[in-house]
Amino acid sequence: MAVGEGVPFDDRGLAYGDGLFETVLVRDGVATLWEAHMARLARGCERLGIAMPSRSALDALPGRAGAGLRVLKLTLTRGSGGRGYRLPDSPAPRLRWRATPFAPSPERWWQGVRVRHCRLALGIQPRLAGLKHLNRLENVMARAEWQDPDVAEGLLCDSEGRLVEATSMNLFWRRDGRLETPGLARCGVAGTLRDGLCRRLGIQEVDAAPEVLEDAEAVWLGNAVQGLWPVHRLDDARGRMLACWRLGSVHRELQAEAHALLGYPRHAGEAGQRDEEDEA
Amino acid sequence: MAVGEGVPFDDRGLAYGDGLFETVLVRDGVATLWEAHMARLARGCERLGIAMPSRSALDALPGRAGAGLRVLKLTLTRGSGGRGYRLPDSPAPRLRWRATPFAPSPERWWQGVRVRHCRLALGIQPRLAGLKHLNRLENVMARAEWQDPDVAEGLLCDSEGRLVEATSMNLFWRRDGRLETPGLARCGVAGTLRDGLCRRLGIQEVDAAPEVLEDAEAVWLGNAVQGLWPVHRLDDARGRMLACWRLGSVHRELQAEAHALLGYPRHAGEAGQRDEEDEA
Repeated sequence: MAVGEGVPFDDRGLAYGDGLFETVLVRDGVATLWEAHMARLARGCERLGIAMPSRSALDALPGRAGAGLRVLKLTLTRGSGGRGYRLPDSPAPRLRWRATPFAPSPERWWQGVRVRHCRLALGIQPRLAGLKHLNRLENVMARAEWQDPDVAEGLLCDSEGRLVEATSMNLFWRRDGRLETPGLARCGVAGTLRDGLCRRLGIQEVDAAPEVLEDAEAVWLGNAVQGLWPVHRLDDARGRMLACWRLGSVHRELQAEAHALLGYPRHAGEAGQRDEEDEA
Repeated sequence: MAVGEGVPFDDRGLAYGDGLFETVLVRDGVATLWEAHMARLARGCERLGIAMPSRSALDALPGRAGAGLRVLKLTLTRGSGGRGYRLPDSPAPRLRWRATPFAPSPERWWQGVRVRHCRLALGIQPRLAGLKHLNRLENVMARAEWQDPDVAEGLLCDSEGRLVEATSMNLFWRRDGRLETPGLARCGVAGTLRDGLCRRLGIQEVDAAPEVLEDAEAVWLGNAVQGLWPVHRLDDARGRMLACWRLGSVHRELQAEAHALLGYPRHAGEAGQRDEEDEA
């Protein structure tokens, strides 16, 4: 089942990116981190002034996503409007969804990933920060900065040089024994996996320059669909290596917490995953 | 004739605002400032890496817009894509358009408008600056800051406090006898009317704080659909008056130039418009 009805020309999601989306990991009809997704959607609706769809309508969607592992993407727009930015007098928000089969990357879980810095710097916009809204051209342009399939993600700073996130994942690191993640009050998307980890583990939200990563004991990227990827190599925007890490138990501890939230294996031996060849 | 086919769920214009638009004033099938619109669309396509539709396909649209005064809105998206920000391997851009009847506001031309500052500050993003792309949530949120129908527009600064534009119009002023407009290298939309006026009159692009307006001899807002509105009153974001102007010949000079570009009356007596009651 993969329903994905479109929108008309005058839909404000199409016209202005005037709306929100969520991508949810669904396993045999059961959504993971569902309450966190619904809470973020509700925050977005409140911030943008869009009426939140009924919880009964939303809660019915994971069950319709089909068997096996799926990604349920739901898109909520302000609905149709006339020409111009002014809000419609009687907006009728439009909810659309599609579920597609999904397979995560165990190799990235267990062997880690190589990432690079992006040249693009995110604009600072506190009014939209944290939301998963439909204005994502910055992410699109940042993702277009590299083609090398060995590079799994690109890291983004804001226009004042602070670390924010990766193009589609949140960023975590450990230094001096403390877990940290960039604060997202100025820009970036507050991921639901990040939310879950911060609540469970008291991860500190900090303002940090990108150089902090080069001295970190461990670096990870994660989101609610892919799970948590340890970073084994960090490159600059020209592809030159800045730092590398040997994956170890420190990496696995946070990964186990993240994967417990998502129903993914907590270590390479679990659920028939391959062994961690690069670990002691 | 008002064609406005929609887009499917997986269209990247809907998913990410990954596309561009133009709104063109068309008079009896003849577009105004058409080459400027096409040039901006081409710049946007180049910057975003979207293939520009053929000029023959684009050039045919104004003639299909219908009789009388119309606004032709055309939307170009990157087309359908899979989940994720990465560009599709073989994107097929999607061009959609709609023409709607339009009536400008002679009262705003001849009596001028009241405008206010917005609280929202535009994020700085040089990679997207100047383009008329589909990521317009900032404009939507800024336009939602006021309901008073007597306030015609809201002025926007960037996150570092420089004047940029109004929510849907460009901004011009005169001080010490010189015409100026904000530079748009960091954010904002480079309007086609602005482009035409800058070329004809050598208007200076400057970085300026909002206070510059309070000392200006004249202030205007303009775009390629509405024409040029002189500002008679400027309010702060709480609605308190910061400055007011008596409209005079200085205002009319720039207006006549703008309206010549758009085929609008160059003074209130022309084409049966009402007299300028508030002028000497």
